[in-house]
Amino acid sequence: MKKPRILVTNDDGITAPGIRVLVQIARELGEVIVVAPDKPQSGQGHAITLETPLRLYRSEVFGKEVEAFACSGTPVDCVKLAKNIVSPGIDFDLCLSGINHGSNASINIIYSGTMSAAMEAALEGINSIGFSMLDFSFQADFTEATPYVRNIAAKVLSDRILPSRLINVNIPRGKIKGIKVCRQAKGVWVEEFRESKDPRGESYYWMTGKFKYEDPDNDNDLKALEDQYISVVPSHFDLTHYPSIHSLKYLEKIEP
Amino acid sequence: MKKPRILVTNDDGITAPGIRVLVQIARELGEVIVVAPDKPQSGQGHAITLETPLRLYRSEVFGKEVEAFACSGTPVDCVKLAKNIVSPGIDFDLCLSGINHGSNASINIIYSGTMSAAMEAALEGINSIGFSMLDFSFQADFTEATPYVRNIAAKVLSDRILPSRLINVNIPRGKIKGIKVCRQAKGVWVEEFRESKDPRGESYYWMTGKFKYEDPDNDNDLKALEDQYISVVPSHFDLTHYPSIHSLKYLEKIEP
Repeated sequence: MKKPRILVTNDDGITAPGIRVLVQIARELGEVIVVAPDKPQSGQGHAITLETPLRLYRSEVFGKEVEAFACSGTPVDCVKLAKNIVSPGIDFDLCLSGINHGSNASINIIYSGTMSAAMEAALEGINSIGFSMLDFSFQADFTEATPYVRNIAAKVLSDRILPSRLINVNIPRGKIKGIKVCRQAKGVWVEEFRESKDPRGESYYWMTGKFKYEDPDNDNDLKALEDQYISVVPSHFDLTHYPSIHSLKYLEKIEP
Repeated sequence: MKKPRILVTNDDGITAPGIRVLVQIARELGEVIVVAPDKPQSGQGHAITLETPLRLYRSEVFGKEVEAFACSGTPVDCVKLAKNIVSPGIDFDLCLSGINHGSNASINIIYSGTMSAAMEAALEGINSIGFSMLDFSFQADFTEATPYVRNIAAKVLSDRILPSRLINVNIPRGKIKGIKVCRQAKGVWVEEFRESKDPRGESYYWMTGKFKYEDPDNDNDLKALEDQYISVVPSHFDLTHYPSIHSLKYLEKIEP
């Protein structure tokens, strides 16, 4: 039987520790192609590069035997280049993105380069999994998470189908009790901007923020993570709010 | 009665012609605050700026009497700065983003800085409308569109409620027959990368693409636009694919 072809990417950059875990697991499960950003691209969301050219460099950070490329663009650019330049005309069976250093639970999914890369692959019809660990440190310990990550990837690969092609997997720090399949929690970032002056006396602003959990119910990813479970949220790219189509039909009466 | 406060932004930059239409309409409807990128930011999706500081400059492109700021960041950064620095502690009643030069119908919504800015405002609880015109040219003619844009904005402002806080409005070129409230069409971009050599002989890639319409049904934004209707798609930021939660519950059985 033909070995499955697995695309691995991330948003923390090709040298981040989290992607090494996915490359190792992908090598056990099939044939690996890595296309990942050459520098950190956190918070890039679904950005693409239109105004400047992109560079793609062969990388040996995972050893000579792994087909890996560093890309000058965003995580979504990486997926587009993987499909069109690195592997034209050959389909991928799975895309693994991450393991992100930091949470992509709740509303973080829309800012996340890791999840946007996975979503771009899903758009292309590839079953895709974004993995994130609730630990920003590059010294994060993936020991406990690794067997779960491997088994989730293997299961998605063997079953060949995710109804919406995409799942968002977040992993708690420390002891893991199991897995919960659930919805995206309601929450927002409350920003604070630190205002400072540059050497010429001009103001600049640096964004920071605190996450505000606003969900009254329990069937969501933040609650699962709080209880030391891995959260699995099936996600998709149809942003239509279907219940409103009917209630907003009266807008069709507007005239010039 | 207190004048409504209206935030205006875009992704084509503060000097683009499309935003002038929204500023003019917003001035007729209430008190305007403009925070828009200082340069084009198309394709920025929901990107935010974490690694570098942001600049905010008073701009008089709309005359001295309009409170307007150019921002060095992404469209989403603009909305965050508007809320936290330009107008802290005072709520906006409406956010208008655009008018984008080019379509944000179908899957374009996820790459669009215009729609991501509107979505960011929606996340903050502000009723938000992203407007886009199916004409990439900065010479686009907004004459026919303007009364519709004004009346949609006025209606959302007077009714004070969009169930999901966000609508994606796309406007056809030429004669407008009316408005259709509908869903996001299925479609993907098929990329082509032009490979060239730089003066040192190194390869670079420039992204271009062709949109592929893949929707067999008619109740969607692309069909409405094709028929010369303005499309209004209620959109939201909960990316959960609810039908899959149940069908993927068996993943909870995965063990380490």
